[in-house]
Amino acid sequence: AIASAKLCSAGMFTLTSPSLSVHSLSHSGLSAAKLLKEKGLSPVVLEARDRVGGRTFTVRNEQTKYVDLGGAYIGPTQNRILRLAKEYGVETYKVNEEERLVHYVKGKSYPFRGSFPPMWNPFALMDYNNLWRKMDEMGSEIPREAPWRAPHAEEWDKMTMKQLFDKICWTNSARRFATLFVNVNVTSEPHEVSALWFLWYVKQCGGTMRIFSTTNGGQERKFVGGSSQISECMAKELGECVKMESPVYRIDQTGDMVEVETLNKETYRAKYVIVATAPGLNLKMHFNPELPPLRNQLIHRVPMGSVIKCMVYYRENFWRKKGYCGTMVIEEEEAPISLTLDDTKPDGTVPAIMGFILTVQLYLFSSLAQPVHYEEKNWCEEEYSGGCYTAYFPPGILTQYGKVIRKPVGRLYFAGTETATEWSGYMEGAVQAGERAAREIMCMMGRIPQNQIWQTEPESKEVPPLPFVTTFWERNLPSVGGFINFLGVASVLSVATTAGLLAYKKGLLTRS
Amino acid sequence: AIASAKLCSAGMFTLTSPSLSVHSLSHSGLSAAKLLKEKGLSPVVLEARDRVGGRTFTVRNEQTKYVDLGGAYIGPTQNRILRLAKEYGVETYKVNEEERLVHYVKGKSYPFRGSFPPMWNPFALMDYNNLWRKMDEMGSEIPREAPWRAPHAEEWDKMTMKQLFDKICWTNSARRFATLFVNVNVTSEPHEVSALWFLWYVKQCGGTMRIFSTTNGGQERKFVGGSSQISECMAKELGECVKMESPVYRIDQTGDMVEVETLNKETYRAKYVIVATAPGLNLKMHFNPELPPLRNQLIHRVPMGSVIKCMVYYRENFWRKKGYCGTMVIEEEEAPISLTLDDTKPDGTVPAIMGFILTVQLYLFSSLAQPVHYEEKNWCEEEYSGGCYTAYFPPGILTQYGKVIRKPVGRLYFAGTETATEWSGYMEGAVQAGERAAREIMCMMGRIPQNQIWQTEPESKEVPPLPFVTTFWERNLPSVGGFINFLGVASVLSVATTAGLLAYKKGLLTRS
Repeated sequence: AIASAKLCSAGMFTLTSPSLSVHSLSHSGLSAAKLLKEKGLSPVVLEARDRVGGRTFTVRNEQTKYVDLGGAYIGPTQNRILRLAKEYGVETYKVNEEERLVHYVKGKSYPFRGSFPPMWNPFALMDYNNLWRKMDEMGSEIPREAPWRAPHAEEWDKMTMKQLFDKICWTNSARRFATLFVNVNVTSEPHEVSALWFLWYVKQCGGTMRIFSTTNGGQERKFVGGSSQISECMAKELGECVKMESPVYRIDQTGDMVEVETLNKETYRAKYVIVATAPGLNLKMHFNPELPPLRNQLIHRVPMGSVIKCMVYYRENFWRKKGYCGTMVIEEEEAPISLTLDDTKPDGTVPAIMGFILTVQLYLFSSLAQPVHYEEKNWCEEEYSGGCYTAYFPPGILTQYGKVIRKPVGRLYFAGTETATEWSGYMEGAVQAGERAAREIMCMMGRIPQNQIWQTEPESKEVPPLPFVTTFWERNLPSVGGFINFLGVASVLSVATTAGLLAYKKGLLTRS
Repeated sequence: AIASAKLCSAGMFTLTSPSLSVHSLSHSGLSAAKLLKEKGLSPVVLEARDRVGGRTFTVRNEQTKYVDLGGAYIGPTQNRILRLAKEYGVETYKVNEEERLVHYVKGKSYPFRGSFPPMWNPFALMDYNNLWRKMDEMGSEIPREAPWRAPHAEEWDKMTMKQLFDKICWTNSARRFATLFVNVNVTSEPHEVSALWFLWYVKQCGGTMRIFSTTNGGQERKFVGGSSQISECMAKELGECVKMESPVYRIDQTGDMVEVETLNKETYRAKYVIVATAPGLNLKMHFNPELPPLRNQLIHRVPMGSVIKCMVYYRENFWRKKGYCGTMVIEEEEAPISLTLDDTKPDGTVPAIMGFILTVQLYLFSSLAQPVHYEEKNWCEEEYSGGCYTAYFPPGILTQYGKVIRKPVGRLYFAGTETATEWSGYMEGAVQAGERAAREIMCMMGRIPQNQIWQTEPESKEVPPLPFVTTFWERNLPSVGGFINFLGVASVLSVATTAGLLAYKKGLLTRS
């Protein structure tokens, strides 16, 4: 009585008696299958594409040695993906941030050090400081596992991030940088996303500093050899039970076993299925019986962000010679790219700059010096991704439909990084979600108790997080609004006092 | 060399040599196939469901005789659907609006006559008047066929309707009614929809009066015998070439002919295909080659509204006896229903009230008197509708992705009411879109010139539109803001005058 199960980038993972089936964006589906296999079950993984890796995509060729054209960055507190990497002997290296970063704004370059560009204008400084502080404060009210239960959930979900920024920010420079912050983190626009959702997203990554930083943050490291290795190693370990080029188009739960059909005309039967695609890609499948109304509505309402990842290769690493590390934060309405990072190999070979093109208009990245090679991946055209990095929630959706995002439907369980509660949207979230879904099924099978479904992960020894220390001024500097209020009160007081004094002196303040 | 073609509610319509294939929400796909057949081609229609009609759904039973649980209402300026109805001998009747309507607000009922409830508070009156006037003014700037080209397209698309209402409305009663206006017209919330999109939607239905009115508006009439009759008559005329229970899951354009596969294991080949589903339901199909990036992104971004249509049947038509026509406009946050209409048969038999439940929470419509029968249809759970009445555009989507909504992809053409430019979202739009897509293919085949693809429709003689006459006051009444400005200026003037006079009298205004 052993199982056949499956899982894929937009595929499906199945196993039978005790039996299940999964459909997945590789990291999530494969990590589910891996855990199930370790526990003595025999999952089958249905992968839609001709490769594993899903939204990670390591290309190997002569010019680049290897290059990650999809998800690539990892950092401290992403302990699950680091654990898998360690298990497979995949090393990490630090993204170069030795030299100075560059903040490019209004046609000028300003070199700086640290996570965020510094502000010299005192109003801009107060405004910046207040922006990050405010976002983190609001985030602290939002439960990771149930953002719809935040005290102000309804109010914040009815607002776009643009509306929130218009409310919080007094200066154009803060507003412009805030826009870039949304663009870069979730590959969408502030006017497209719910404020509640974006604040939750930043919070469940550990806050504004952790999500945006290279050193000590989400972009601290990359995998030597590329990020798809993790999926490839898991697939190798799973062996024959990973079925490639098997997009699932039909899931039938009307019989004793769940029946799953793939485009390549295979039919799989399983007791349980883990659907590990992005929520919107559930739509690629025809369900019998139909999905419940809330889930049917949810999956039409959470589109993927839009991004083209590109790499430009140079003969030499000229930026480092000039004292720049390769990180550029670009604030310019017409610039197709908002953020670049050094993508040179850890041994200094293959000098390259990585950039995200965040608009859907396909501009070509015409570059500074003569590149010797170019690589790009337009994630918007991928049928089995729908976009990258992750799904976003437009206003009103999270409070209305969010609670069903990982709610099982009969014998279907849901994984995929979007269903995670820590680093959702990242490889880490994919692993958390996959393992949680696997344990949900083990719990249903009576193999583990309910309170073991959700598990915390021990901290990585190799990549430990450092706390972000806030200064007295970061905590206590007033916002521009606060400062103006203070000035206002002070000047009214002083005008009144002066006027009173003058009046008194002139003898006008006599009782009538 | 004659064709086999197909079309369906979420199906597909095909014909071969000269050959094509369509996939449709019935009115749109069937009207495309009907036109093609009339021109000597032989379409095949692939219908996902076990019935034609798509988002129209006429149920027949003893208790109700017949009842429309989906799209039902038609009115003046909807000339294409009226033309089809006339051709098939389907009569229309007027929705009862003889007696008084009721406006229910803050727990009290106010009877009224006319399209909109009157306002007695002068501020509310100004505010109301300004709201409709403003929306129609803004709409007049938006091109029906290309809303993304409106002079303020970008600005309005970055805004939700909630933001716009917060800007325009001064009084709570206007804001509350404005919310109801969005709820009832597009079964979604003001904070969910782009202002540009909603203003376009109202405009292409003929403005605020036309869309909301019963008499002389979109809800003026119903079909005697039910609205699905139109689809049923078209299907009957098309005969064998309509294939039921044939959901399409795969479209392959890599060969000479487009290859289309259905869940019931049939394969169809055609030279052209019309996909006549709601845009979001394109996702039910796996495409080879993949759809272009912009279309792939669009179809994840335009969810369907959420609505449950319900009917309560009574022994007698007690509301008419009390002098009410059955229309209730209900402003109450907790009320599941915002609008009711009389649904008694035109001969006075089968007394009934129709209501739309617009929230996704499934409240039960507990009613005023003892009902004798109840019918409902939850459109949110329909896999091959995704919701009802129509797709909505969240902020930012229309300007970024709107222009590909009916752009052909190779030999795929797009119909469905969402692609229409007049009464999009209605049965009328479905017919406009279906016929336009059919003519696009005829044009490709060299049978008609390009300038005949889009055709205007002669006005129905039986259901002629009346102009909406605006009064001098409707045109010239100030907005609350304008009035306050005016008051402000006036009172400053009067205070200044009075003060000046007093000062003069007291001898204070002497030159120094």
